[in-house]
Amino acid sequence: MSVIVNNEKLLQFTEKVFKTFGISDKDAHVCADNLVSADMRGIPSHGVARLKRYVDGMKSGLIFPQNKPEIVKETPSTATVDGNGGLGQVVAYFATKLAIEKGKKSGVGIVAVRNSNHFGIAGYYSQMILNEGMMGISLTNSAPLVVPTFGKEMIEGTNPISLAAPTKRNRPFVLDMATSVVPRGKLEVYDREGKPIPEGWAVDENGKVTTDAGKVLKNMLARAGGGILTLGGEGELFSGYKGYGMSVLVDILTGVLSGGAYANLVYAKKEGKVVPPNVCHFFMALKIENFVELDVFKEKMDDLINRLKNSAKAEGQDRIYIHGEKEYERYEKHLKEGVPLQEKVYANLKEIGEEANVPFDL
Amino acid sequence: MSVIVNNEKLLQFTEKVFKTFGISDKDAHVCADNLVSADMRGIPSHGVARLKRYVDGMKSGLIFPQNKPEIVKETPSTATVDGNGGLGQVVAYFATKLAIEKGKKSGVGIVAVRNSNHFGIAGYYSQMILNEGMMGISLTNSAPLVVPTFGKEMIEGTNPISLAAPTKRNRPFVLDMATSVVPRGKLEVYDREGKPIPEGWAVDENGKVTTDAGKVLKNMLARAGGGILTLGGEGELFSGYKGYGMSVLVDILTGVLSGGAYANLVYAKKEGKVVPPNVCHFFMALKIENFVELDVFKEKMDDLINRLKNSAKAEGQDRIYIHGEKEYERYEKHLKEGVPLQEKVYANLKEIGEEANVPFDL
Repeated sequence: MSVIVNNEKLLQFTEKVFKTFGISDKDAHVCADNLVSADMRGIPSHGVARLKRYVDGMKSGLIFPQNKPEIVKETPSTATVDGNGGLGQVVAYFATKLAIEKGKKSGVGIVAVRNSNHFGIAGYYSQMILNEGMMGISLTNSAPLVVPTFGKEMIEGTNPISLAAPTKRNRPFVLDMATSVVPRGKLEVYDREGKPIPEGWAVDENGKVTTDAGKVLKNMLARAGGGILTLGGEGELFSGYKGYGMSVLVDILTGVLSGGAYANLVYAKKEGKVVPPNVCHFFMALKIENFVELDVFKEKMDDLINRLKNSAKAEGQDRIYIHGEKEYERYEKHLKEGVPLQEKVYANLKEIGEEANVPFDL
Repeated sequence: MSVIVNNEKLLQFTEKVFKTFGISDKDAHVCADNLVSADMRGIPSHGVARLKRYVDGMKSGLIFPQNKPEIVKETPSTATVDGNGGLGQVVAYFATKLAIEKGKKSGVGIVAVRNSNHFGIAGYYSQMILNEGMMGISLTNSAPLVVPTFGKEMIEGTNPISLAAPTKRNRPFVLDMATSVVPRGKLEVYDREGKPIPEGWAVDENGKVTTDAGKVLKNMLARAGGGILTLGGEGELFSGYKGYGMSVLVDILTGVLSGGAYANLVYAKKEGKVVPPNVCHFFMALKIENFVELDVFKEKMDDLINRLKNSAKAEGQDRIYIHGEKEYERYEKHLKEGVPLQEKVYANLKEIGEEANVPFDL
């Protein structure tokens, strides 16, 4: 069951909650907009359902909302940014703006970021770059939940990759994907419904494929062994080492390149204590005109998309999707009809409002 | 059954064959070294077994070995190269050298390439960049053999991704992976052995998963429907749309960005006639010191690798691999013991030598 709310009201409420932590209107807007955008695009796992985690993070010393990101190394086309443990969205917004500026001036802008926090959906930042007429790439590492091929210990994060590219008539191409076979949220859904998960999503404490979502989630929480598999699944038969490779690729470009944390150093406790998780990001803005006329690029993007969409469908299928298409359609629907929130999430927001003394009038 | 040959002799023979087409010593060396390197690393599908295809391509007007690549657009950090239908290895070597030069001067060097040919293994070029102390990325699109999620028509190529990053004590990280679940060669192996392929590798003419490798290969040849699945397999259950997204990502950065061919325009016939296939590439050289001290980067790479390798193993497994590790080990083994060639490949080379009037003394 879900409650339908107005997106503008949801945005204002979320902004007000962030502002109670003493951050600027602009920073509060970026954080709130990132979360509400995820709900609008139909990615509720990264939407306001996470507001509680951000609030708790700011209270517990995981996130330092007053800390400002700073540039620690810089050239005309590159920079390294230290987030100083600030809000992930604020740090990522700062770094993406910097990549855009550099991309416009130098043709390529690459910014690596260390000491940040969970930044929401990766596609938010690649689309900031897209909105400036460039090709945008956004990567982040994340809490270790994924086991490497032949392993049973959670070493890598779900480490998502996003690329956004402009088009002429079609909607832009916006890839935004975790490099794991599924996110943890999917295991939670199956667990709640008491359904067995497909063989190939997760392994148990012995590193063996299991269909028992509850057991996996319990093990994950206790870090008792097992976890989520990489894209391609267990072992080598369906090339799980490729998804494993993509997750390490993301970790190298984010955690290693920025001089920050990687692998199971992300969200690691220090002497048993919670410390800022040192999440790391990577943003790249590419000026298309330096390679080919922008109009030619956009025409070719349309043609590529049409070739995929108009190609023959598999039996029982009537549509081939382009990455980002479903999200654009959900966004438009939610703009007209309101954003659906799970009842549990709605109640949770109400509680946050009461605690923070922010009127809850969704 | 295989024949063991000396790698130096194999290289010299292959060089001589390329030279019969009137190309320079240097260009012949690049082409031969690329193929022999693949055999040395244990990737025989991209080794001298392909020499016949290159020879036939040069004879039939698919490859114009005399044509030189040229820079059609250029900034201090970027370039677009037109391969003019030349040898893929020669074009890619030229473009990679250009990316390295730009990377050294500007911190980032990105080169997009159009009108090229099959360039061999992607990892050859990312490792050229690695050998100059930088992080290297190499991408290429390829002949359409892969069906999009919910489709049954081969629109995308196996579009590989390679990233190479330096280390201090461990072997460098060298990811080199197709974005399809398997290469066509794997179907051929199962077909020869009369074994059913796993459910999730390929679809039949109706777009349904099949275990019949022979049927898929026949359909692929006739373009009668069906083909190889993307990483993640059929439909959405194991996130096949992610592998599909990665293949399109590669196509955008290679074919679209360079102003060349993409999707099923690669290797397309023109008015029923064979024309140069317009394969497109992307190379990126990243100067690590502009982000973090090179020594810190390398130390962190070692630590990342050790965390993965030393993590707990799944039941029945005693080793976790890092990308590139198996290839380095095979290279060292083959350097000592010689390179194994399938008897069929050996006989094939002998025939090529006789036709080209090149002494065959492997």
